[in-house]
Amino acid sequence: MDVRSATVPFSDWLAAGRGRVNVLLSEHLNGLKPPTPGDRVIEVVRYACADGGKRLRPVLTLETCRVCGGDDRAAEQAAIAIECVHTFSLVHDDLPEMDNDDLRRGRPTAHRQFDPASALLAGDWLLAHAFDVILGGPNPAEDAAGMAQVLSRATKAMVHGQSADMLGEKVEPDAELVAMIHRDKTARLIEAACEMGAIAGGASDSERMALGAYGLALGQAFQIVDDLLDVTASTKQLGKRAGKDGASQKQTYPAVFGVERSREEADACVRRAIAAIEPFGSNADRLVELAEYVITRAR
Amino acid sequence: MDVRSATVPFSDWLAAGRGRVNVLLSEHLNGLKPPTPGDRVIEVVRYACADGGKRLRPVLTLETCRVCGGDDRAAEQAAIAIECVHTFSLVHDDLPEMDNDDLRRGRPTAHRQFDPASALLAGDWLLAHAFDVILGGPNPAEDAAGMAQVLSRATKAMVHGQSADMLGEKVEPDAELVAMIHRDKTARLIEAACEMGAIAGGASDSERMALGAYGLALGQAFQIVDDLLDVTASTKQLGKRAGKDGASQKQTYPAVFGVERSREEADACVRRAIAAIEPFGSNADRLVELAEYVITRAR
Repeated sequence: MDVRSATVPFSDWLAAGRGRVNVLLSEHLNGLKPPTPGDRVIEVVRYACADGGKRLRPVLTLETCRVCGGDDRAAEQAAIAIECVHTFSLVHDDLPEMDNDDLRRGRPTAHRQFDPASALLAGDWLLAHAFDVILGGPNPAEDAAGMAQVLSRATKAMVHGQSADMLGEKVEPDAELVAMIHRDKTARLIEAACEMGAIAGGASDSERMALGAYGLALGQAFQIVDDLLDVTASTKQLGKRAGKDGASQKQTYPAVFGVERSREEADACVRRAIAAIEPFGSNADRLVELAEYVITRAR
Repeated sequence: MDVRSATVPFSDWLAAGRGRVNVLLSEHLNGLKPPTPGDRVIEVVRYACADGGKRLRPVLTLETCRVCGGDDRAAEQAAIAIECVHTFSLVHDDLPEMDNDDLRRGRPTAHRQFDPASALLAGDWLLAHAFDVILGGPNPAEDAAGMAQVLSRATKAMVHGQSADMLGEKVEPDAELVAMIHRDKTARLIEAACEMGAIAGGASDSERMALGAYGLALGQAFQIVDDLLDVTASTKQLGKRAGKDGASQKQTYPAVFGVERSREEADACVRRAIAAIEPFGSNADRLVELAEYVITRAR
C-alpha cells in the first residue's frame, strides 16, 4: 500500500509514519551495546525513547526530504537524531531542578523511574549521540555536517528558550517575550527537523528556506496549542500534569491573550506555515494536512 | 619568541599554550550574543569557562595538529570545542544529583554561584555549542565532520564512565572496573583531543592512531594522578574538595592498589604514552614533556 497516495486518509498516513519512526528507533536502540556491565545509561535512554510520543519531528524530517525529491531513507539518520534531541530535552526538563515532573506520556518520568543522576546522564548521552548518528551515517560529509550544524544551533536556541521560560515566571505576561520563548523553546527544533529533511533531500536554498519557514510557523502553532491544552485538558488526557503553566506563572499565550485570541494566533501560524510551502504544490499536501492537524488538537 | 624552540623551558611553553587557549576562549565567549534579554545561559557559560583550568585538552589539540605538520590555527575550533565539552562535564558532575560539589577551581561551582537549573542548561548549551564551533569553522567539511564525530563518541564514553563511576560506589574496589571507568570517564576525551588535532593537521591514519594511543595512555595516567591527589593533597591545594573519593567509596586506583602501586601504574601509562609517539621523533618532544609533567603532579 502506498501510504502517500491521496486516497489514504491523513490519520492512516500519520500512523504509518509514526510506526515507521518507532521501528527505526527501536532497531537503532536495540543495536546499542552498553559498554560496561555496571552502566545504566542505555537502559534509561531506551526507557525515555520508548513509545508514546507523537514522533512529529522525525515524521517531518522524513516527509520534507521526500517533498524535495529525495529518497526519504536518506533522512533516517536525521530523523533518529532529532528524536534523540527532543527526548534529551524532555528528560532534562522533567528533572527536579527544572519542572520536577513525575509524569510524562502517562508514565513515570526518567528520574522518577530511575534516579536523577542517571536521567541527567541519559539526557547528556542522547544529545551527544544525536551528532554521532548523523555524522556516522551514509550521508555525504557535507550534508551530514550541514545537518549536524542545523541541529546544534536549534539545540542551543532550545536551551536559551528554556532559560528564558524559567526566568519568565518571575515577570508579568508579555506578548513579545512569550513569542520569543515559544520560538526558541519549541519552534526552532521543529524548524531544524524540516531543514535537516531538506538537506537530506538535496533541496535548493529556496526549498530549504521554505521548509524551514514552514517548520518555524508550525512549531509556533504547536506551542500555542500546547499552552491551550494545559488550560483546557485534564492530566489524564495529556499524560502529563495539566494546569502547571498557570500554577508556575509561566509566560503562555492564554496568560497574555486569553483563550480565544490564542486560538486565533495558532490559526494564523498554521496559515503562515501552509503559505510557506505553496511553491511545492500538491506534493506538499501531507505537510498541509499535518499543519491543520496540529491545530485541531486545541479545539 | 618561538615558544616551540627547545631552548624555551617546558613550563614557559605550557604557560604560553595555556595563555593562548585562554585568549582564544575569551575572544570566542565575548563574541557570543545572549539572544534574549531574560536569558541567563551565556552568563553561566562564561563563568564556568573562565580561567583557572589547566587547559590540558586544547593545548594537546593544538600541539598534536602541529606535530602532524599542520598550521595549528586549523585546530583552534577543535581546541575551543574540546574545552566546551570538558567544561560541560564539570558543570554537570558538580550538580546536586551528581557529586553535589560547592567548590571547583577554588570558586563556587556554577550551580552554587547561580542556580541548579541554570547550571544544567549551561552544560547542555556547552555540549551543543561544541559541535557548532567545529562544524561552523573553516575546516573542510570532511575534517569537521570527522572531528565532530570523534568528539561525540568520546562524550558518550565519558557519560558511560560517569554512570559506571557512580554505580561503582556500591561495589568492592575492582581492578578491571576502575581501569574501565578511568578510560571512559577521563582518557577517552583526552584521546579525542589528540585525534581531533591530528585530523586538523592532516595526519595519516597511522599518525592519528599513534596520537590517539598517546592521548589514551596520558589520560589514564592523568586520572590515576587525580585519584592520588585526592588522597594526598589538601582542599586548598586542589581548589576542590579533597578526600571525597574515599568518603563516597569511589572506584579509585589507591583504593584498589594502594598509593605506591598506583604511582607505578601511572608511571607505566606515561611510558606507554611516550612510546606511542616515538615515530614522530624530536618533533614530539613537547608531548613527551607534557606526559612527564602530568606524573610530577603526583610526587
